[in-house]
Amino acid sequence: MALVVQKYGGSSVGDARSVKRVAKRIAEAKRAGNDVVVVVSAMGDTTDELLDLAQQITPLPPQRELDILLTAGERISMSLLAMAITNLGVKAKSYTGQQAGLITDAVHGRARIVDVVPHRIRETLNKGQVAIVAGFQGVTQATNDVTTLGRGGSDTTAVALAAGLGADVCEIYTDVDGVFTADPRIVPAARKIEQVSYEEMLELAACGAKVLALRSVEYARRYGVPVHVRSSFSAHDGTRVVAAEKKENAMEAPIISGVAHDRSESKITVIGVPDVPGMAARIFEVVAGAGANIDMIVQNVSAAATGLTDISFTLPDGDGPATMAALTAVQGELGFDSLQFDDQIGKLSLVGAGMKSHPGVSARLFGALRDAGINIEMISTSEIRISVVTRADSLDDAVRAVHTAFELDGVDGEAVVYAGTGR
Amino acid sequence: MALVVQKYGGSSVGDARSVKRVAKRIAEAKRAGNDVVVVVSAMGDTTDELLDLAQQITPLPPQRELDILLTAGERISMSLLAMAITNLGVKAKSYTGQQAGLITDAVHGRARIVDVVPHRIRETLNKGQVAIVAGFQGVTQATNDVTTLGRGGSDTTAVALAAGLGADVCEIYTDVDGVFTADPRIVPAARKIEQVSYEEMLELAACGAKVLALRSVEYARRYGVPVHVRSSFSAHDGTRVVAAEKKENAMEAPIISGVAHDRSESKITVIGVPDVPGMAARIFEVVAGAGANIDMIVQNVSAAATGLTDISFTLPDGDGPATMAALTAVQGELGFDSLQFDDQIGKLSLVGAGMKSHPGVSARLFGALRDAGINIEMISTSEIRISVVTRADSLDDAVRAVHTAFELDGVDGEAVVYAGTGR
Repeated sequence: MALVVQKYGGSSVGDARSVKRVAKRIAEAKRAGNDVVVVVSAMGDTTDELLDLAQQITPLPPQRELDILLTAGERISMSLLAMAITNLGVKAKSYTGQQAGLITDAVHGRARIVDVVPHRIRETLNKGQVAIVAGFQGVTQATNDVTTLGRGGSDTTAVALAAGLGADVCEIYTDVDGVFTADPRIVPAARKIEQVSYEEMLELAACGAKVLALRSVEYARRYGVPVHVRSSFSAHDGTRVVAAEKKENAMEAPIISGVAHDRSESKITVIGVPDVPGMAARIFEVVAGAGANIDMIVQNVSAAATGLTDISFTLPDGDGPATMAALTAVQGELGFDSLQFDDQIGKLSLVGAGMKSHPGVSARLFGALRDAGINIEMISTSEIRISVVTRADSLDDAVRAVHTAFELDGVDGEAVVYAGTGR
Repeated sequence: MALVVQKYGGSSVGDARSVKRVAKRIAEAKRAGNDVVVVVSAMGDTTDELLDLAQQITPLPPQRELDILLTAGERISMSLLAMAITNLGVKAKSYTGQQAGLITDAVHGRARIVDVVPHRIRETLNKGQVAIVAGFQGVTQATNDVTTLGRGGSDTTAVALAAGLGADVCEIYTDVDGVFTADPRIVPAARKIEQVSYEEMLELAACGAKVLALRSVEYARRYGVPVHVRSSFSAHDGTRVVAAEKKENAMEAPIISGVAHDRSESKITVIGVPDVPGMAARIFEVVAGAGANIDMIVQNVSAAATGLTDISFTLPDGDGPATMAALTAVQGELGFDSLQFDDQIGKLSLVGAGMKSHPGVSARLFGALRDAGINIEMISTSEIRISVVTRADSLDDAVRAVHTAFELDGVDGEAVVYAGTGR
């Protein structure tokens, strides 16, 4: 008998019919002899609808109130799911984040879990019942206030509960069959990855693969929680995220896990920056002060004739306006010529633990892009990742070219299985 | 400076625009120097929509889960209202029933308040902020489970908080201008009642006047909470519900407060009942066992020739099928001839503390109905109420005839003010 934590996303519980389908799956897991804890997101687009409602009231809602508002969505889905499971003859009880003991700090809107005290969940399991827990939400210990964990927070709830309960596996159910070597909407020959290490999954999630929230992977790595990403629409095995040393056939693992892409970043270029010590530090102080999370940075070699250089960096689209405003405000002080804002960029990331020990990976990447006629604007690397920035409208071609160049395309006789929208 | 508890119903916060309108009103009360606590219901038809969703999952949802589901509605309205008030420059915080200290028993779906521990509400007031509290919901002390107080529960939340905080007044905002001498949709000449005693309001609420939930009136009477029923769409004074001895001009108070009506009951007649001791007791044991709340009872004089009698009683429409089934099951045992079910009845109730000391009230009532050609099927009385059952399709005529006979129609120069649907 295993202790299984299952997480179902909003697309798996979009309407009453889907809720019943998921309930059937949970009841089967329970009847198969497992202890089952279920974490559930809000139904379909509920969270976005609630956000819309808040925007109709005020452009800047207080975060504390926004958190209370948004958690209504999980309250609805979790109680409906408990009803549906009970209706199948399996006892189930639903619990809010507070009732499930998910204690967070008080940073509303993106609270971090500081403790998991799942007494009531254990009691429920001990009675032979299924426990349903609201994803995405917690409570502050000092003030008993409702918090949310931010987008993708339900994945984090599931992994944190799995860690707190010592679960055998944390199953993340989604509308695709697992993690793919690339987005199947762009690369029809993309293959499902059977196993991936925490580190590779971290890079993939950070670089645009949306199937698992980045924070949940960090949490899973820290506590060694085995994660299984799979489809709620099929019975196929999905992708197992495990410690690198536990990967089966680690010796024969492919060099490259997959190609991620991201269209959600913009590029800001500061043109004609005086090339004096401390100037870059000053620029990025201003950028940090505007609250932007910068990703890649490139500084051109200074032109000897002018003593001026250009500095480019990428950041999430949403951080663009505030950052441009902050930089404009210090133009006189810093003495640069002008600013350029470019939201038509795309980022391609090649991820694989194998590239550490295989020379020539970047050469092959750049060669593939050259052969496809795609210009590289920026480059950054980590031990197990190479990212390049291209024009947004070349990104799909770039992903396909790289996927093929690293022999990731599905081979004869290997089924390429994916479902839903391929997100 | 007064401490005011204001309650806004679902029709007052039906959409974002209404929420903003109500927020303005609350901000004004606060700026006028009052301490303000606001109890809010779910927006518009939210509760019914959530019930529909549950029905799509299972015909018999577990009550505990249904309570969690339904309380999502107030979570949405209270947070939006707090946002809207904050947006007007007045600080406001919203609290769930649990956070506001509304402790109930564990009878899900119709929990009773056992204690009110509003520490956080007091703290919020002490900081000069407005406290918004979710109506209709509480929490069990032992298990920290979410409960609901049943339909009309938000009125009860407001009165209970007003009692717990020692508020100067509990203002119940609705979509009509107050309590009327009759439903203005039926009697256009109906007048707003300026003052009414707890006892009269109890009879009116019990007999079909929907403007205040019966339980909230009971609670207000027990704790002596002054209640002011008024419109959220106007600034007019509404109806004040007070202790009988505090009514202004008590000596000159009219004999009759108003005419209530109710179309939500059915009549069951047990025909040919052997007229032997204990038979009525046995019948009503069976009825009680079916869970029905019976209202009026009439037993005919036994026909000497046959030794048989008929027994009729009224009960809420919804209790009809189960009660008919329970009685049918014991027909052989009890030996009655047959059962009749009639959901085409209406009940008219004349309420007024003055009728205690004024003879001839019932004679005038019956005379008015006779003159209007309306047949009376059943009669019941209390010290301050007379109720009669008529055909459902005669009920409107009956209400108008009685309203006129007791000189309740608006007189020359007296404005008849009502708003909204006149519910």
